[in-house]
Amino acid sequence: MAHTTDTHMFDSHLTIIEGAIADALAKAHLPPELAEPIAYTLDGGGKRLRPLLTVLAAEACGASPHRAAPLAAAIEILHNFTLVHDDIMDRSPLRRGKPTVYVRWDESTAILAGDTMMGIAYRLLSEHYDAETCRQLVAEFSAAFIEICIGQAEDIAFRYRPSVAMSDYTEMIARKTARLFATATASGAIVAGASDRTSQALRRFGHGLGMAFQIQDDVLDLFGEPQFGKQRGQDLREGKKTFIVLSLADRCSSARALLERYMHGEPIASDADIERIATLCRQCGVLEEAQTTIDSYLDDAIAAIRRELPPSPARDLLVAAAEKNRTRTL
Amino acid sequence: MAHTTDTHMFDSHLTIIEGAIADALAKAHLPPELAEPIAYTLDGGGKRLRPLLTVLAAEACGASPHRAAPLAAAIEILHNFTLVHDDIMDRSPLRRGKPTVYVRWDESTAILAGDTMMGIAYRLLSEHYDAETCRQLVAEFSAAFIEICIGQAEDIAFRYRPSVAMSDYTEMIARKTARLFATATASGAIVAGASDRTSQALRRFGHGLGMAFQIQDDVLDLFGEPQFGKQRGQDLREGKKTFIVLSLADRCSSARALLERYMHGEPIASDADIERIATLCRQCGVLEEAQTTIDSYLDDAIAAIRRELPPSPARDLLVAAAEKNRTRTL
Repeated sequence: MAHTTDTHMFDSHLTIIEGAIADALAKAHLPPELAEPIAYTLDGGGKRLRPLLTVLAAEACGASPHRAAPLAAAIEILHNFTLVHDDIMDRSPLRRGKPTVYVRWDESTAILAGDTMMGIAYRLLSEHYDAETCRQLVAEFSAAFIEICIGQAEDIAFRYRPSVAMSDYTEMIARKTARLFATATASGAIVAGASDRTSQALRRFGHGLGMAFQIQDDVLDLFGEPQFGKQRGQDLREGKKTFIVLSLADRCSSARALLERYMHGEPIASDADIERIATLCRQCGVLEEAQTTIDSYLDDAIAAIRRELPPSPARDLLVAAAEKNRTRTL
Repeated sequence: MAHTTDTHMFDSHLTIIEGAIADALAKAHLPPELAEPIAYTLDGGGKRLRPLLTVLAAEACGASPHRAAPLAAAIEILHNFTLVHDDIMDRSPLRRGKPTVYVRWDESTAILAGDTMMGIAYRLLSEHYDAETCRQLVAEFSAAFIEICIGQAEDIAFRYRPSVAMSDYTEMIARKTARLFATATASGAIVAGASDRTSQALRRFGHGLGMAFQIQDDVLDLFGEPQFGKQRGQDLREGKKTFIVLSLADRCSSARALLERYMHGEPIASDADIERIATLCRQCGVLEEAQTTIDSYLDDAIAAIRRELPPSPARDLLVAAAEKNRTRTL
């Protein structure tokens, strides 16, 4: 029963979010060279997790979903902008089972489509909110945006840096991934006119959920059901310093020889080595460490909003969204 | 005497602009992977024309240069962001005599450095202005930014479109080039709290100056002193539909055979063909048409501010900046 209500509530929120995204694109009056790759990206089957968090955060602070909708659209457009540019940098051929924009069109189109999305996201903030709210949102977006870029630069730089510690990784994913989650929830509080204290609680919630989400993502790369033609161990084949790799290097002396060259920037190339790493992860407790870490971020996230926000259906849905990431399979 | 005063006035403005740019970069606390390419770009010997226009526009409307400085820095950072990304798209090896960012570092760095600059530019707007001014500036920046991206997409698409008319070109450069000039001057008026009417006059000034600037740029590509190791006729070697090419195709029947394949997307490859085109331009009055068009944009630009703004040293400097573009050689 509760499940049915939840799903229905998500559906109506999703409809509002999709409408706001479609409005923003229509209003930009783009030529087909830009409109098509941008629509392709935004219709690409994303789960709309971040904009849902924005709408729910605003609602948990007493605002209507409609008030939060343009902001939520801006969050989703900003997120997709980073994906389009990241896919070029990571040379990723596929996203959500479809060719990435730079593959389907070309690099120029992908760069320019991403840039345009950025302009559209900021325009939403200036057109739908009063001046003071707009100023706060632009400050939040810009700070987040710079942090996301720094996080992406660190992620790239880490591949060739042998001495990446777990604490470096934690800082990097806080920027690259969790910051946008934190901005999604904190800015939801901002448009609801919430107090600083409440905004901080929602920021903390978004941060914890984002951290858990990224660690789960790292685990799923090696242990999830390969989805959409994505290769198992894609991160390892790209030489990324993920939670899995750093935890394994820390915990498992028998993995050291196998990881020695990897830590210096040489990707894992063979399926056999990928399997060997997966086996060592199971033997050395890497999965347990990941789950403990995920649980601790989620517990902190949930506690932050339970402490600060009054009970409400929206707060319950935020908690449900967090709980879903405890054992995410996709 | 007047010249000395002008130079001195520009110098003090330039010092203020450089200070605002340096402050913005320092405040972003970027890791070297991003700080270095961004500093390289912003220290690359740009003339700071756009931010100078911003400061002068604000001053001509009664504001202090200091008030306009963070905005001017944002304009210059936005401009340089477009250069870093455009150079990737255009495969340009050199800018201002130095290797471009994607050549000196790599494409990922150039994409990410550009993105970061965008975040820094917007942050300046939210941190240095009151809420209502910030909202207006963000609206102006975002609309401009989207137009600039559309203009760049058109510029690329035109290369393979045989039927580009002079009016298409005019619309394209209005977006790709003149819009940022118009935003530079109009936003200067905004931070000065000028009336809509005054902002419109300054927008018109920036637009006219930007149009003249781009047509002059097209002329200089073929007839200017080759600067900084840039090849003569670079635009033609990239297959661009410039003022030169479109005017020549219109006016000069003996150029038609030479331009037939060019109009369908095949760049001019040989020095001999570049020379032939230059000769035909001289014979068929292309240079005169360019000068007439430039003069008419500049006359309109200057008239717009002479009509609307009271006489002031800043207004005189705006006029001087426009006049400089009548016969620009660099």
